[in-house]
Amino acid sequence: MIPDRELAVFEAGIKLGALYHQWVGTPVSRDSAAGVEKAIEQAVILQPFVEEITVRLDRTLMTPNTFGYSELSGLMFDVDIVTRVGFTYCRARLLQKDGYPLMQVTECNEIPGLSRH
Amino acid sequence: MIPDRELAVFEAGIKLGALYHQWVGTPVSRDSAAGVEKAIEQAVILQPFVEEITVRLDRTLMTPNTFGYSELSGLMFDVDIVTRVGFTYCRARLLQKDGYPLMQVTECNEIPGLSRH
Amino acid sequence: MIPDRELAVFEAGIKLGALYHQWVGTPVSRDSAAGVEKAIEQAVILQPFVEEITVRLDRTLMTPNTFGYSELSGLMFDVDIVTRVGFTYCRARLLQKDGYPLMQVTECNEIPGLSRH
Amino acid sequence: MIPDRELAVFEAGIKLGALYHQWVGTPVSRDSAAGVEKAIEQAVILQPFVEEITVRLDRTLMTPNTFGYSELSGLMFDVDIVTRVGFTYCRARLLQKDGYPLMQVTECNEIPGLSRH
Repeated sequence: MIPDRELAVFEAGIKLGALYHQWVGTPVSRDSAAGVEKAIEQAVILQPFVEEITVRLDRTLMTPNTFGYSELSGLMFDVDIVTRVGFTYCRARLLQKDGYPLMQVTECNEIPGLSRH
Repeated sequence: MIPDRELAVFEAGIKLGALYHQWVGTPVSRDSAAGVEKAIEQAVILQPFVEEITVRLDRTLMTPNTFGYSELSGLMFDVDIVTRVGFTYCRARLLQKDGYPLMQVTECNEIPGLSRH
Repeated sequence: MIPDRELAVFEAGIKLGALYHQWVGTPVSRDSAAGVEKAIEQAVILQPFVEEITVRLDRTLMTPNTFGYSELSGLMFDVDIVTRVGFTYCRARLLQKDGYPLMQVTECNEIPGLSRH
Repeated sequence: MIPDRELAVFEAGIKLGALYHQWVGTPVSRDSAAGVEKAIEQAVILQPFVEEITVRLDRTLMTPNTFGYSELSGLMFDVDIVTRVGFTYCRARLLQKDGYPLMQVTECNEIPGLSRH
């Protein structure tokens, strides 16, 4: 038996890995960024165990190429996700650190009053 | 020298091939489909030589899985794109035919009054 | 502080989610399947915390389309991955179950003799 | 009716756009690059109208990140593809130019002795 807490962490990892590789490479600009953020959020929230998802793309990295747009790269992501399994919530993040798009578990919390007896 | 007409056709092919492989696999539902359509359109219109793009996803194929959502598949696409190079417009389409997501050139037109002398 | 065990589970989730969305949609056939399996394995093993990865694609689902090939779909995957953080190993799997490409933690083990005092 | 030459150009565009967005983001290193090149070639050659495909990835751009690997980016691609429709061959290329991953038609040729009378 895998405890809920580990399952919640596992699900957060799945969602971050998935969204990263689904959207990297998408044409994007500062004007279209808000729409892409919303599209990613709406896709991720459909998946099981996802409670909350916030996607913010770093516009300062969207340097226009010869044709005036950019490509969504891993370093642009600032994603905050909350997954839930049973009564345990897990928060994780995708955010660039030292030039690497790092995925990290931020915290896990069990709702104490609701735990099973 | 490649004529404008062939270049316009080439660009239409690039865009259809690109959007297909960028977006296939995205979690989608009947409720979120309109947002995904718009996000794809907004991404494609950024790219050079694209004049118009309309994306329509077939909701009837979005059969919910155990967790209540679907995955964007190639057969769901109905895409109509118009590219332009110089004074030549090319229209192409991605639409399922006999169970295959077929990409086809629909028509090419040169604007006669505007041609170079 | 997140325990090693949760971190190992998190990393397994990341890798499974990532490979799924990176590779879904790739043209594949029964003849080319072994090459795709190897390419996925070689890409995943590069990533941090991955100890072992085995990818097996279900050839019986590779029904040739009009043009004689298939597209890699989520249901074709049978992936077994082992991640390690510190002295804890975690094994997880991606395998279709009831028509859904399910990702699951199989087991986690700490090497007892090597634990920190 | 669209002439074979335009169809061949269209197909070349499709394939280049497709492979770009399918593989961008894949973890890659100088050691694994040859395997990725081969996997892309083997996937593209399955598709209709493709006669030849050569993929070469620029290892000099594969600067290892903190964890010792890179991510396949558009600028790494050097792809040469030949498509054929009827008796017309079309050659196209994906190669970075001035910091942009440019796709271009190189040449089209009809086999004269084999043309229809």
